[in-house]
Amino acid sequence: MYIPTYDDMLAAHERIKPHIRRTPVRTSDYLNELTGAQLYFKCENFQEPGAFKLRGATNAVFGLDEEQAGKGVATHSSGNHASCLSYAAMLRGIPCNVVMPHTAPQAKKDTVRRYGGKITECEPSTTSRESTFAKVQAETGGDFVHPYNDPRVIAGQGTCAKELREQTDGLHYVVAPIGGGGMISGTCLTLSTLAPETRVVAAEPEQADDAYRSFKAGHIIADDAPKTIADGLLVPLKDLTWHFVSNHVHDILTASDPEIIEAMKLTWKHLRVVMEPSSAVPLATILKNRDRFAGKRVGIIITGGNVDLDKLPWLNR
Amino acid sequence: MYIPTYDDMLAAHERIKPHIRRTPVRTSDYLNELTGAQLYFKCENFQEPGAFKLRGATNAVFGLDEEQAGKGVATHSSGNHASCLSYAAMLRGIPCNVVMPHTAPQAKKDTVRRYGGKITECEPSTTSRESTFAKVQAETGGDFVHPYNDPRVIAGQGTCAKELREQTDGLHYVVAPIGGGGMISGTCLTLSTLAPETRVVAAEPEQADDAYRSFKAGHIIADDAPKTIADGLLVPLKDLTWHFVSNHVHDILTASDPEIIEAMKLTWKHLRVVMEPSSAVPLATILKNRDRFAGKRVGIIITGGNVDLDKLPWLNR
Repeated sequence: MYIPTYDDMLAAHERIKPHIRRTPVRTSDYLNELTGAQLYFKCENFQEPGAFKLRGATNAVFGLDEEQAGKGVATHSSGNHASCLSYAAMLRGIPCNVVMPHTAPQAKKDTVRRYGGKITECEPSTTSRESTFAKVQAETGGDFVHPYNDPRVIAGQGTCAKELREQTDGLHYVVAPIGGGGMISGTCLTLSTLAPETRVVAAEPEQADDAYRSFKAGHIIADDAPKTIADGLLVPLKDLTWHFVSNHVHDILTASDPEIIEAMKLTWKHLRVVMEPSSAVPLATILKNRDRFAGKRVGIIITGGNVDLDKLPWLNR
Repeated sequence: MYIPTYDDMLAAHERIKPHIRRTPVRTSDYLNELTGAQLYFKCENFQEPGAFKLRGATNAVFGLDEEQAGKGVATHSSGNHASCLSYAAMLRGIPCNVVMPHTAPQAKKDTVRRYGGKITECEPSTTSRESTFAKVQAETGGDFVHPYNDPRVIAGQGTCAKELREQTDGLHYVVAPIGGGGMISGTCLTLSTLAPETRVVAAEPEQADDAYRSFKAGHIIADDAPKTIADGLLVPLKDLTWHFVSNHVHDILTASDPEIIEAMKLTWKHLRVVMEPSSAVPLATILKNRDRFAGKRVGIIITGGNVDLDKLPWLNR
């Protein structure tokens, strides 16, 4: 297991800078008053494909040597990683193969295809996904870019905290959502060197709280069929992300689905940005733990903004 | 009639800079591809009270001498001007009186009160509004700040185009919505000196096309009971805004309500910002007049972002 270093993150930032956006940091007097904290929202939903995952994907794609680049990349994902990897591959002009269950939403498939990604459908089971993916990889020779358990991906995600630090300075906390742990790991990687005084807090849905339980137990515990509105956060920790979570994360806080939906609506209304339920988990946990964050300067990573605008959770309860 | 000058706009910018946000300019590869143009969206919906009207209101409020400031400001409006004027008055710590029909949405009233504005309700008729306002003004001595037909307000709105020019450089067009014409007038005021080569285009709902018909006729024509989803654009031109519209506007383009709703949804989805139907009229007209804008660099002013998230127009057709 290769653990990415601070220098890997710096190299990633130089590599991906021409291809990604330096996303803005937004504030809201209203949300500051509501929480008693000074909140700094880093808008990764403003990346062209709408998610921070573009950073890690772009680092992996543009780090390939010419020979491997000719064979392209491959992954299995039905979420933002698939579209971001396709987008990054399109920027470099190389193939991207994606294995996705045939049950995935049509909109997700359309986005991957719009960015030139080639989809191979599988059954919605781990066995089918793994065998299908093995076949696709054998046929294409595409380099496997895991959604989060990959040092190139984690180094890429870490560039977000570097920018946030440059744009804000002197944060007491950075709070980011945790699913597989890619963004949290990158954040830990960067801040443990650049701003060790800043505490990294992971925010997780109660109904998919495997990271919380793992953190308390001291070893990885997987969820049994998690189900939450924050559908970007269903995946489990893996060895590489567990390394960062267990060594560097200050705490993991959880919020219920109704609390997440309420925080999502608050952000749409007062920050006036479109973001996914997953991205609302940090604000939900801050509202729930007011005493801890009051009077503090808190960075929040808005991880993604891909939402079905015809099915907003506060209209479908 | 005093016509504000370029120097008034420069003075306004110095005066309001400490109190407003220099809003970011956003782009979307997707929307560029769709229109064939290079679009630069100036996000005035990111002002704290959610609209460009903060600029003009802040210029009026902070330009008052101490004696007048003690008596505060007053206006009649049930829209963004009322909340922005209340917010600006709160920043300076002076009274703000707002006359509003009792039929105005509760959310609008709540926002004005949250910013310390004092509401006096009237009947939803011009007669009642005017008599109620006269009474309030006589009692309080508050300085009347008209939502748009006021040189201080127009000079303030013009600061938006100054920033947009600094942030983008070399635009062929700037397209902004037109209602009473405050933003369009400010834009003309600024660009006719700063970038006379940039054409200012006003975008208007078909179902409230009084500015379009006035522009073609050469004199102000008022609408008879306009009704459109773009409810920020229902008000008529007045002498001061007509001056700028008739002298400096390059063209006025219109779009239907379904086209406005489609453009609104496209922006939410691909730019991932929350904006009002009124703010979507420019993109709707650009999509409708593809040939004119293809290959051009086009600035678009997203004028506001205050929307009832429980009643989205594409879910209520």
